[in-house]
Amino acid sequence: MKEYAKVNDEMLKELSAILGSEHVLTKKEKIEKYQTDEETDPRRFHMPEAVVLPGNTEEVACVVKLCNKYNVPITVRSGGTSLAGGAIPVCGGIVLLMERMNKIIELNKKSLYLIAEAGAKTIDIQQKANEEGLLYAGDPCSADSCQIGANLATNAGGAKAVRYGVTRNQVYGFEMVTTMGEIVELGTRLKKCTTGYCMEQLVMGSEGTLGIITKVILKLLPKPPYKFDLLAIFDDHDKAVDLVPLILAADINPTSLEHMDNPNVRYTAQYTEFTEAPHYEDGIYIIVTVECFSEDEMDMKMEKLDEICSEAGAIEVLEADDRIWNMRRNCQESARLQSLVSITDDIVVPVDKIADVIKDVSKIAEKYPFPVRFNAHIGDGNCHLIISKCNVTNEEWETEVEKFHDEVYKYVYSLGGRLAGEHGIGCKKIDYMEKFTNPVELDLMKRIKKAWDPNLILNPGKLFYMQ
Amino acid sequence: MKEYAKVNDEMLKELSAILGSEHVLTKKEKIEKYQTDEETDPRRFHMPEAVVLPGNTEEVACVVKLCNKYNVPITVRSGGTSLAGGAIPVCGGIVLLMERMNKIIELNKKSLYLIAEAGAKTIDIQQKANEEGLLYAGDPCSADSCQIGANLATNAGGAKAVRYGVTRNQVYGFEMVTTMGEIVELGTRLKKCTTGYCMEQLVMGSEGTLGIITKVILKLLPKPPYKFDLLAIFDDHDKAVDLVPLILAADINPTSLEHMDNPNVRYTAQYTEFTEAPHYEDGIYIIVTVECFSEDEMDMKMEKLDEICSEAGAIEVLEADDRIWNMRRNCQESARLQSLVSITDDIVVPVDKIADVIKDVSKIAEKYPFPVRFNAHIGDGNCHLIISKCNVTNEEWETEVEKFHDEVYKYVYSLGGRLAGEHGIGCKKIDYMEKFTNPVELDLMKRIKKAWDPNLILNPGKLFYMQ
Repeated sequence: MKEYAKVNDEMLKELSAILGSEHVLTKKEKIEKYQTDEETDPRRFHMPEAVVLPGNTEEVACVVKLCNKYNVPITVRSGGTSLAGGAIPVCGGIVLLMERMNKIIELNKKSLYLIAEAGAKTIDIQQKANEEGLLYAGDPCSADSCQIGANLATNAGGAKAVRYGVTRNQVYGFEMVTTMGEIVELGTRLKKCTTGYCMEQLVMGSEGTLGIITKVILKLLPKPPYKFDLLAIFDDHDKAVDLVPLILAADINPTSLEHMDNPNVRYTAQYTEFTEAPHYEDGIYIIVTVECFSEDEMDMKMEKLDEICSEAGAIEVLEADDRIWNMRRNCQESARLQSLVSITDDIVVPVDKIADVIKDVSKIAEKYPFPVRFNAHIGDGNCHLIISKCNVTNEEWETEVEKFHDEVYKYVYSLGGRLAGEHGIGCKKIDYMEKFTNPVELDLMKRIKKAWDPNLILNPGKLFYMQ
Repeated sequence: MKEYAKVNDEMLKELSAILGSEHVLTKKEKIEKYQTDEETDPRRFHMPEAVVLPGNTEEVACVVKLCNKYNVPITVRSGGTSLAGGAIPVCGGIVLLMERMNKIIELNKKSLYLIAEAGAKTIDIQQKANEEGLLYAGDPCSADSCQIGANLATNAGGAKAVRYGVTRNQVYGFEMVTTMGEIVELGTRLKKCTTGYCMEQLVMGSEGTLGIITKVILKLLPKPPYKFDLLAIFDDHDKAVDLVPLILAADINPTSLEHMDNPNVRYTAQYTEFTEAPHYEDGIYIIVTVECFSEDEMDMKMEKLDEICSEAGAIEVLEADDRIWNMRRNCQESARLQSLVSITDDIVVPVDKIADVIKDVSKIAEKYPFPVRFNAHIGDGNCHLIISKCNVTNEEWETEVEKFHDEVYKYVYSLGGRLAGEHGIGCKKIDYMEKFTNPVELDLMKRIKKAWDPNLILNPGKLFYMQ
């Protein structure tokens, strides 16, 4: 690992001169919350040496230049909702907060785009579009607290990817500060373009290792005025997951297609205090959301869907109200009812393989000493496994989790799948990234990182190891 | 410019040992046709020293390794349909033909994908999908002779981009030989993925400068069973282009939306010997193609479209049969009826600006001593200008074209547009690329090129200048 310098007084003085001293934090009580994000394991925490809050792109650029000058690493933090330790400053240095750069600059209703600063909250963008009868289709589960720039940087997913795709599909372009502190726009509002390398798609999903996104140009869509949510309940897990290909083949174009196995149903019913959750003792849930542009379309699709679910062996088909969605949203949080220590996986496979993968990984899990729960954005092939430590000893936990991951990831990669569908790699999955990524592919990534960030200033210790 | 070695006997011997001597061409009469592609200006021609025809990916990799070993540049050639000199070996060396690698390997009807070798013809892929009631939506104008690997490498466009997007939107992933001769797969058949850099989108559109694509995994779509083509004729150019935003706003979702100004109508009528072309003396054509999934949808959209065209001031609205499309396809070829020497431009702007851009650029053109004709994939913002030399002197031609381009490109970039929508940069537009691309953006591209291809072996003299 590269050796970095510590933030010194001279650098702090320069930072204060640029940002104003009130936007340069160094006191322990002010900065200690930035030693982690959603990560709860203190062994992974790392204190920054200073936290800065730039107010505009030029200030971000100045900070980056100073970090190069002083050989200090910089980690950008947005909502701090990373499940992969993406916002933890693992090499210390500066944490840069985007929260002051939170303006929505323009919504163009006629030409269907929205321009915002990178620190704007995703929910504010969604609501702004909504107010105009439009849709911003990016919708990560943490939308109410995450920020749009980080959605781009991590290529955030969520439940609506079945119909609309992930964040990288919602973006025309963005303004970025390069790792050398230059300001550049990548991508533009074009349907076609052949003037060199498509670097906007390269930067999206690079987890803050290639540049700092400061402003975004997003695509908007006409908002379908009709919507229904349906819950199909099964008492047989195989039947539940086999429903998925039937729905996808049926020309229904669902917005979301979500899955919770019975342990998730039980724990989330308890966690959300929804004591009348239907069939919570033995039910497996498939939740389907469909958006429509007319009532006729809605009636037709509702009827078709009901039919498919019943034929597939659903024991009950109900409207899924917000209490059901609340359960679905709390799969992760409810894990602590079962065990204070747990790990969440985020495997993704081609959609046509997901039913088999859930069955096969369930079988693999049976061999291990810990319970594994499944919830999935099953319509886009993305499955979260929650592995709970429960009473397993520390030593066994470490070795068995490692073995389990090896077995599962090897299988997933053999199908053309990957170990992270939407949570990213961050610092938590970096060893697996190094192990399971094709070495040539990994080398190509590292060559780009080194070419763009020769001093390795930007978000070091993430994605992969650099020397 | 870097100095390369010449292909020597030792290298030829090694090439023959790998490929078989019948697949290594060096005789002038065999290789002289590879000194150019669609380019007709002999000043741009450049003879390769040898032409090789590998039969599989491993052989491609061996050729690339030899080129690194002997410091010889390599230019990949597919259908040779580049309008930007993309297949011209401007630094000599090896031309590598993909034509032996032309197999369609798999069409998966259930999971909607197709795998093919990179040298497969685009038209064969389209037809194969068609036979199964499916659609491969990539459709460059040269589809009957171009090859799929090159479609990816150039991010080929075409007339269907309005509805389906360009080639980069039709691709799950591909196999590639790196510039160091390694074999790697980039991209996979996933809806979501957050395991590092999205390099498949980086490579697509890089015009063969970052790797040699050897196998592709394409998305297929259900083929809409109904289709109609409509021709709206105007006698006022402004009214014609003002039709476009009306159609795009009308929830018709056209597949294509094409434009020909009157000189194009006249010359293509003559070139295709369609003497009864409607209103060819003064008509401006807008051609609209709409695909539908039901007869009801088709009737509804046809009626709506007819109404919009009439209200916009069309003097006639007809069915556009194949003779009209034949005219549209021959805008480029018919240019020689007007002048043996001509230049085709390929500007692209945000779709909501295209009507104004065509009007404004027409006005700019009036100041110049040469006629400028306009045909446009107007529904996706991509406009081709055909500038004909006619009787202008050589000297005036060079300086005035330069001035015209400067003026037009400056204006186009000020709108967020670019100088190449689908033809690419190749060697022909490299000076404009250097001049009009933001220097920071250009530097980022060059850093990637240098990082991946330190010996500058792959397709040198294209896209931008490297030292």
